[in-house]
Amino acid sequence: MAHRRSDVLAHAVALLDTHGLSALTMRRLGSELGVQPSAIYHHFASKQELLAAVADEILARGARPRTAVAWPDRLREVCTELRLAMLACTDGADVVATVWAFGLGAAGPVSELEKVLADAGAPADLAAVASRTLLHYVFGHAFEEQTARQAVSLGAVDRPLESLPDFDLGLDLVVDGLRARLA
Amino acid sequence: MAHRRSDVLAHAVALLDTHGLSALTMRRLGSELGVQPSAIYHHFASKQELLAAVADEILARGARPRTAVAWPDRLREVCTELRLAMLACTDGADVVATVWAFGLGAAGPVSELEKVLADAGAPADLAAVASRTLLHYVFGHAFEEQTARQAVSLGAVDRPLESLPDFDLGLDLVVDGLRARLA
Repeated sequence: MAHRRSDVLAHAVALLDTHGLSALTMRRLGSELGVQPSAIYHHFASKQELLAAVADEILARGARPRTAVAWPDRLREVCTELRLAMLACTDGADVVATVWAFGLGAAGPVSELEKVLADAGAPADLAAVASRTLLHYVFGHAFEEQTARQAVSLGAVDRPLESLPDFDLGLDLVVDGLRARLA
Repeated sequence: MAHRRSDVLAHAVALLDTHGLSALTMRRLGSELGVQPSAIYHHFASKQELLAAVADEILARGARPRTAVAWPDRLREVCTELRLAMLACTDGADVVATVWAFGLGAAGPVSELEKVLADAGAPADLAAVASRTLLHYVFGHAFEEQTARQAVSLGAVDRPLESLPDFDLGLDLVVDGLRARLA
């Protein structure tokens, strides 16, 4: 049976969400779709390319309307959307951060942060550093939150979760640093 | 053959550094040491407990003398030590961030950051948020840098690496945010 690329991608996201990143292999994906791995490679030339498409799909599904006007709020909007999109899929933070590190996808948030900062009058080098700093903060926070919640939920570890809701507070700290530079 | 806990731990770190996180299993560790997995479990009750000991060993090996006096420099010293310790071992950032998320180890850096901030006069709630923000930034940056360098070095991906040396610039941005709060 032939599958369209979009069907294979949708199944890959479902497989990731249900069984986690370690289960997301070309072999298993082919087996669940009733095709040879070569049929998967027809659509995605490599595991990295599949992961990149999965990361971009995770971000696309998390897209929310933009309503903020002031640049600090616009930055928060992008960072919050990114965080929630990753948290909405099992191992989403790991996948999106890995694909970003590979340079193969998940590039939307940084582009958008850079644009917000350029609009706010930041020089290009500050906009680049600040966008990457915000991204690294969001990745680091989301990775902890998701790993902790998943492990506790599986009964693998037993840790308190009440420190996790400090995402906005830490984000404000980075934004304050930026405000000092843009003043 | 009986092995001391420290021998098993040293071999686990060597296995991680040589073959990466996916190779670090209780079974493989036992096999390489010529013992049954049960002999490994005698020293480490679970895979999580082993990972926690490995993370703390990675941090211990990266320990450097403290010489800074002013609080921003003291924060930078702790963050830089953490970053370099993780980068010094294959998949070190992944292991340390995961163990921190599990709540099972790698707690030294946050404790030290909190102490530096308390000494600088930060209220406890700000010290807690700021320490976690710095940690998440360091984790996010180190994860990108390590994942990118390892993947490029293996020939798995081909991406430019020149954006990676911006660690200190991003750290300064967070420190500036903190400076604004402490002023």
